[in-house]
Amino acid sequence: MTLDDLCINTIRLLAVDAVQQANSGHPGTPLGAAPMAYVLWDRFLKHNPSDPKWPDRDRFVLSPGHASAMLYALLHLTGYDLSLDDIKRFRQWSSKTPGHVEYGVTPGVEATTGPLGQGFANGVGMAMAERWLAQHYNRPGYEIINHYTYAIVSDGDLQEGVAAEAASLAGTLRLGKIVYLYDDNDISIEGNTDTAFAENVTRRFQAYGWHVIGPIDGMDISAVQLAIRKARAVANRPRLIICRTVIGYGSPHKAGTAAAHGEPLGEEEVRLTKERLGWPHQEPFAIPPEALAHFRQALDRGRRQQDEWETMLRAYTQDHPEEARQLAEDLRGDLPQNWDEGLSSLFVKADKPIATREASGRVMNSIAERVHSFAGGSADLAPSTKTLLKDHGHYGFEEYCGHNVHFGVREHAMGAIANGMALHRGIIPYTGTFLIFYDYMRPPVRLAAMMGIRVIFVFTHDSIGLGEDGPTHQPVEQLMGLRMVPNLVTLRPADATETAEAWKVALERRQGPTALVLSRQSLPVLDRRTLAPANGLHRGGYVLWQASQSPEAIIIGSGSEVHIALEAGKLLKDNGIAARVISLPSWELFDGQLPDYRNQVLPPGLRVRISIEAGTPLGWERYVGLDGKAIGLSRFGASASGKVIYDQLGLTAQRVKDEVVQILEGKSYWWPAT
Amino acid sequence: MTLDDLCINTIRLLAVDAVQQANSGHPGTPLGAAPMAYVLWDRFLKHNPSDPKWPDRDRFVLSPGHASAMLYALLHLTGYDLSLDDIKRFRQWSSKTPGHVEYGVTPGVEATTGPLGQGFANGVGMAMAERWLAQHYNRPGYEIINHYTYAIVSDGDLQEGVAAEAASLAGTLRLGKIVYLYDDNDISIEGNTDTAFAENVTRRFQAYGWHVIGPIDGMDISAVQLAIRKARAVANRPRLIICRTVIGYGSPHKAGTAAAHGEPLGEEEVRLTKERLGWPHQEPFAIPPEALAHFRQALDRGRRQQDEWETMLRAYTQDHPEEARQLAEDLRGDLPQNWDEGLSSLFVKADKPIATREASGRVMNSIAERVHSFAGGSADLAPSTKTLLKDHGHYGFEEYCGHNVHFGVREHAMGAIANGMALHRGIIPYTGTFLIFYDYMRPPVRLAAMMGIRVIFVFTHDSIGLGEDGPTHQPVEQLMGLRMVPNLVTLRPADATETAEAWKVALERRQGPTALVLSRQSLPVLDRRTLAPANGLHRGGYVLWQASQSPEAIIIGSGSEVHIALEAGKLLKDNGIAARVISLPSWELFDGQLPDYRNQVLPPGLRVRISIEAGTPLGWERYVGLDGKAIGLSRFGASASGKVIYDQLGLTAQRVKDEVVQILEGKSYWWPAT
Repeated sequence: MTLDDLCINTIRLLAVDAVQQANSGHPGTPLGAAPMAYVLWDRFLKHNPSDPKWPDRDRFVLSPGHASAMLYALLHLTGYDLSLDDIKRFRQWSSKTPGHVEYGVTPGVEATTGPLGQGFANGVGMAMAERWLAQHYNRPGYEIINHYTYAIVSDGDLQEGVAAEAASLAGTLRLGKIVYLYDDNDISIEGNTDTAFAENVTRRFQAYGWHVIGPIDGMDISAVQLAIRKARAVANRPRLIICRTVIGYGSPHKAGTAAAHGEPLGEEEVRLTKERLGWPHQEPFAIPPEALAHFRQALDRGRRQQDEWETMLRAYTQDHPEEARQLAEDLRGDLPQNWDEGLSSLFVKADKPIATREASGRVMNSIAERVHSFAGGSADLAPSTKTLLKDHGHYGFEEYCGHNVHFGVREHAMGAIANGMALHRGIIPYTGTFLIFYDYMRPPVRLAAMMGIRVIFVFTHDSIGLGEDGPTHQPVEQLMGLRMVPNLVTLRPADATETAEAWKVALERRQGPTALVLSRQSLPVLDRRTLAPANGLHRGGYVLWQASQSPEAIIIGSGSEVHIALEAGKLLKDNGIAARVISLPSWELFDGQLPDYRNQVLPPGLRVRISIEAGTPLGWERYVGLDGKAIGLSRFGASASGKVIYDQLGLTAQRVKDEVVQILEGKSYWWPAT
Repeated sequence: MTLDDLCINTIRLLAVDAVQQANSGHPGTPLGAAPMAYVLWDRFLKHNPSDPKWPDRDRFVLSPGHASAMLYALLHLTGYDLSLDDIKRFRQWSSKTPGHVEYGVTPGVEATTGPLGQGFANGVGMAMAERWLAQHYNRPGYEIINHYTYAIVSDGDLQEGVAAEAASLAGTLRLGKIVYLYDDNDISIEGNTDTAFAENVTRRFQAYGWHVIGPIDGMDISAVQLAIRKARAVANRPRLIICRTVIGYGSPHKAGTAAAHGEPLGEEEVRLTKERLGWPHQEPFAIPPEALAHFRQALDRGRRQQDEWETMLRAYTQDHPEEARQLAEDLRGDLPQNWDEGLSSLFVKADKPIATREASGRVMNSIAERVHSFAGGSADLAPSTKTLLKDHGHYGFEEYCGHNVHFGVREHAMGAIANGMALHRGIIPYTGTFLIFYDYMRPPVRLAAMMGIRVIFVFTHDSIGLGEDGPTHQPVEQLMGLRMVPNLVTLRPADATETAEAWKVALERRQGPTALVLSRQSLPVLDRRTLAPANGLHRGGYVLWQASQSPEAIIIGSGSEVHIALEAGKLLKDNGIAARVISLPSWELFDGQLPDYRNQVLPPGLRVRISIEAGTPLGWERYVGLDGKAIGLSRFGASASGKVIYDQLGLTAQRVKDEVVQILEGKSYWWPAT
């Protein structure tokens, strides 16, 4: 066996043994894809296992995240901080080796993958960030940012729409630093891909504007090596190398079948596989010393490469001190001193109603003046979402330094690409679309939350208030849906002033994503001279106004319903009932306050509580309990003017007032209704 | 002006006037796409405006649903039950002419569209249903089912991943009765499509296996006519005709620009447009009599075509009475007499735990023995979702009568295609994937609910109970998310016996979709000799067991947590505390019961209430209120065995018991926590 083959088999069998020991996992892809992964990591990948965060490392994304054991093997063998014991604890509670690869859990894992297609699109985002930084910061003689983004992608990835969207955009942008290896093994869970996937992948990717190499024999290391070398030589095209492989290669009874995909081979089949591969060790987790020695050369090589880069960076810092400072700030994701100066006073002089999307657009443009790394775009709705950063350029082919990305009508890829940008670092990305299209991009929002990365998802047109476009475009369940995603902070500001505060929260929140939920329709700018200040938003919820220090009833609203709640409070006052009005822009922030504060806002004993929100009432019982009432929508919206829909569906101050009176008179039925 | 041009301008200007009168809407597409729509409707479309439900009519889907005014014009002009007054009430409350086209609201609208890409995929589902019925029922000399599925699709549709997924599957299946007209106008909301959509659409669709015609001049009616004729002559390939058009054609200042897309032209520009188009009428909503007369020929033509078909059907019924009876049953969507016989007793003898996905598989196979129209498939997970109908064949090229569709790893298209099948009628479709991948297919689930069509969405692997695959695959917010979709019934059965009842609900529910949420892990089959019967599921929630007629505490669970709730109830009993255990498989069904029943199950005065569910607790306050506690997950899951995760995250009977004791002892804090 050559050293290369020995190394490849070491990857394969570490993965197979890990799966077998866990009695759970996916041995098929590691057996088939180990050769291409090996060639890439051994001959091309620029990385430093001692410093997985080196900014100019090549990025490697394993889009089929279920092939995790293969990546863990590579990380251990090349010297990352991942021990053999970690691998032996594959798929166990609190181990560094979960079933699908997870960013932040395992050093060297660049993205959490598993839901197919996401990694493909994340890589496009990484490559976009790389080009953006390169164009901003590289100077003659200083290729400070200059790395590839590699990925292994699978049949399943290429079937998912999100990958199709990302591929089309990558082709349009002619991203020249993407090299993807397609593990083309003809097998998916239901059997041969012929039954569902008979398309010509080569021609499809060529149609997108990719350079396609192959099909090559993906098990032949010299073929893979040649293909990657050729791929790197092509300019201004993303590259796809089609590698024909055999899933479960080496397993006498399972190779080439779906049986190799998602379950352990079994003790006996593992034995036979080792035999077939000419592997001399029957004990599990064997690593031949010569293989380990070879892999570990990555440590020296990586240190040397990073050293060279740092030497260059030092010289660059001397020659271009301002650029170096800004680059460092961008890469750290830091906000400059006083970045938010003036934001809170942007709307103090507002004398007419402003839609929160409109206010958001102004805030964003202020931020863009000071925060260089702030960039993003919209899924073909920028004029409506107001997310355009004026005078900050477009991101396009050879205009990679623009701050405004045109994602096209591709919400799903937009989310996943923004995740990739955040993972790369250097950009604080935002996305923009209508709230209803959150449904098109739920997976990346969830993954951003799981990865704990700073991505800002702007969602406008947040309710029936958008009016005539009708129920297909009117969110009902989306707002509450956002609140249910762990580690996502959702902000639905009541007016322009809260919108400014919301953006501060979003930019400053580094440990996870933020969703901004904004109105299409104009909303009164709350008069803060008579009402509590807008910075109450930072606590999630606050008493906006009350008729008396000892209110008899509480009215809670968010976003575009807060001014209705306020109107209702005043109606009640006119009727001799003292109400308190609470603005609750963020449940996550409010629920995270200390009990004292929460009880101050919502006194536990005061149960006459009404909420009003133009979305599903389900969930509002958290605040109104069994004795209050949640006013919302338990049906789809309608096509009419926003005002008419609000009236017809009972989202009015009069209704709130009536409900409060009913509860106070003991007429309300305990059952939570709409 | 020729009569054709007059007719085309009539469509255009009805649409323009409707938008102008509503002061809201999309004039651009009607102006550009009217010629192709006219040619299709005038020269090819087989339809009968007097009977929009004629089963063998051609289907026409307007995928850019925002071009609704164009379709309303066509429907009115050709004689559907849609008056000129309806068109004048465009986008008004309770009109038959909402902003985006809606199925069930407007006669002749085949699908609710607006969220882009959905209509494209719906059409694929319609064409699949057509082929399925044709292969089942056509006999020599009797082409009982033989119609085309046409659609107009836009740049935006083709950018969406869902359309890419559906196109790839349609190509794989070589669906020969699809003809789509692509309105290729180079403009989307952010401007020229070059910025985001530079791919070669022709080559992409060829790669999928489509036959592509064009680009042709989409404004030239003879070119369009020739192209459609050619397209219909091609066998065994879906067809895409690329029609180059000018958005906003005729508008002197807005044609060819994004300004024509989504807002009224304005009074003056309408005037100028009419002038430019040579339109002699300045009053709005003018319909030249000769144009109307020409359009209305569709009535006679349609009646004649349907008469011929009905004559054929009568002869067919004589020659093939059993087929005719079965076809009628399929088309009506009726279930045969006694279709559910034996389902409730499938598991009476179960003596070991059964995963509800496994139980579901058995129930489905029983149903398939009796319900001919029951067909569907999985997004490459059939062996895991247990959704395969054994011995009912695969749906593939030239095997169109199989009941098992291999959707590939394409959840989004799967949902939208299933919607298309249900809209077509003849199939009662189901889909299958993991619950986490509901996130990939939210839009079609929502649209099925909005359209009120019977689609059964099977979601397995419904919680952390799936184990080692980890947080990327473990739902947290998805289950509650399903419950928030209006007109969707979600069922999460506690065991095999409830699973059988759940399928009965799903099949019998004709007015909307049903989601079945099932476990990967084995669950005890509840012993119904000592517990309440499983048919309690039909009321959504029921008292499963209680220690006493006057319980001190209530424990509520759903699905895989019901047996834990039961165990907790018994633990409490051992500790001298009388609890009631409620199984709550469906919130929608339970909330729909009369107050008496609900109050019987959940006595309003009894506030010591604990819920347990392996998902977000947000929402459970509806039942546990401010004085109870919702045990659930406010974080993402983890990669470990299901049992370990349940223990580590506190989803145990012991925890439930402890919480009940705490509440009873007054130690629990009112604030809803996790």
